[in-house]
Amino acid sequence: MHIPEQIKVVAFDADDTLWVNETRFRDLEMEFVRMMTDFVDEKTCRNALFQTEIENMEFYGYGVKPFVLSVIETGIQLSNGQIPQQNIAKLIALGKDILNAPIELLPGAQETLNYLQTTDYRLVLATKGDALDQERKLRASGLEHYFDHVEVMSDKQLANYELLLRKLAITPEEFLMIGNSVKSDVLPVIALNGQAVHIPFHTTWEYEQVSHEHEEFHEFESLSELLNSIS
Amino acid sequence: MHIPEQIKVVAFDADDTLWVNETRFRDLEMEFVRMMTDFVDEKTCRNALFQTEIENMEFYGYGVKPFVLSVIETGIQLSNGQIPQQNIAKLIALGKDILNAPIELLPGAQETLNYLQTTDYRLVLATKGDALDQERKLRASGLEHYFDHVEVMSDKQLANYELLLRKLAITPEEFLMIGNSVKSDVLPVIALNGQAVHIPFHTTWEYEQVSHEHEEFHEFESLSELLNSIS
Repeated sequence: MHIPEQIKVVAFDADDTLWVNETRFRDLEMEFVRMMTDFVDEKTCRNALFQTEIENMEFYGYGVKPFVLSVIETGIQLSNGQIPQQNIAKLIALGKDILNAPIELLPGAQETLNYLQTTDYRLVLATKGDALDQERKLRASGLEHYFDHVEVMSDKQLANYELLLRKLAITPEEFLMIGNSVKSDVLPVIALNGQAVHIPFHTTWEYEQVSHEHEEFHEFESLSELLNSIS
Repeated sequence: MHIPEQIKVVAFDADDTLWVNETRFRDLEMEFVRMMTDFVDEKTCRNALFQTEIENMEFYGYGVKPFVLSVIETGIQLSNGQIPQQNIAKLIALGKDILNAPIELLPGAQETLNYLQTTDYRLVLATKGDALDQERKLRASGLEHYFDHVEVMSDKQLANYELLLRKLAITPEEFLMIGNSVKSDVLPVIALNGQAVHIPFHTTWEYEQVSHEHEEFHEFESLSELLNSIS
């Protein structure tokens, strides 16, 4: 891949692009499914949780706290109020464990940033979710110093990117976004006429899954592969 | 009060400065205290909740979701797991009610902003908490258009204000902050050599209470009174 000459800003998504995130949510979900086996089967449990999450998204947004609240709500509902209170306490504790978990960088993350900081690109972190969580993860990642600008976006739709570009004082054509979500990191950026690189993560939250056969963007298996290609 | 000549930016806190907020948390707390009367007395209940909130603040930050999670955790703990699950579901629902509540502007908020927009000051909203919550409240308040810049800070300590001033490209001496919290809106700004106006709200969360006898800042009973004084 050749980075187009007009690009001024290279922006990275954080969760599941630079570091592991989704896996921790799925682990908590698995524990929840196990707690609920007395009441419902796995599929019903997962579907109901997903439904609750979608319904709550408008009020709660993204992140660990919304997830734990939705899990508890679903648990009480599906068990007709019979889920043991100690299991609810356990779910809250597991949520805190996610918030305290050490950051596990994905292959090539550090190396790609190391390489890009020797170039003239302005490096930006463009992430979605809870500002406090994201700031803490960024500090814990040791990657903070690479970025000229960090933006925690409330969502990653087209309008949110327009706002970001305005803040960065660049045109869409000067913007390259790298991320694991086709829906959040790739499609809106392409729609604006920016550039996007997709680095799939092995686990994609159902909400982020879209079909995208006809869109044009680059895809690499890992940041290491991207780095091989551009350096 | 005379606004010093060098002031370029007038910044407002949002919750309990421009609109009612704390009251809604205290209403939920009151309902929680009622639910817990079978297990503990009011004082024990309130103290334990406050303790849990403080312990969780590092992980959870501020806002409705942290509050609801801390209330549930405290309820399970104080009742030895005996708080009915339906009450936990009720607490989650009450939290959503807060997130959906209409915005109730405080006296003089609209009028003060109306007046200030006829001046040369840049108007800034400098609020703390959950970005999604604050953005939603700002939209619902109808006050969005008054502000040149909106900053949702993860905290309001001295370093957070330094960052804000850097973003605004002004010196502390050019900054006037108006807010209801001496701890968050007044003391750090004064420490930086900025100007601050305190507008007390009738309810102050225990966490925000500090003693401040020897600090120098202006205090008005309401934004209406401030407006009378400056216009």
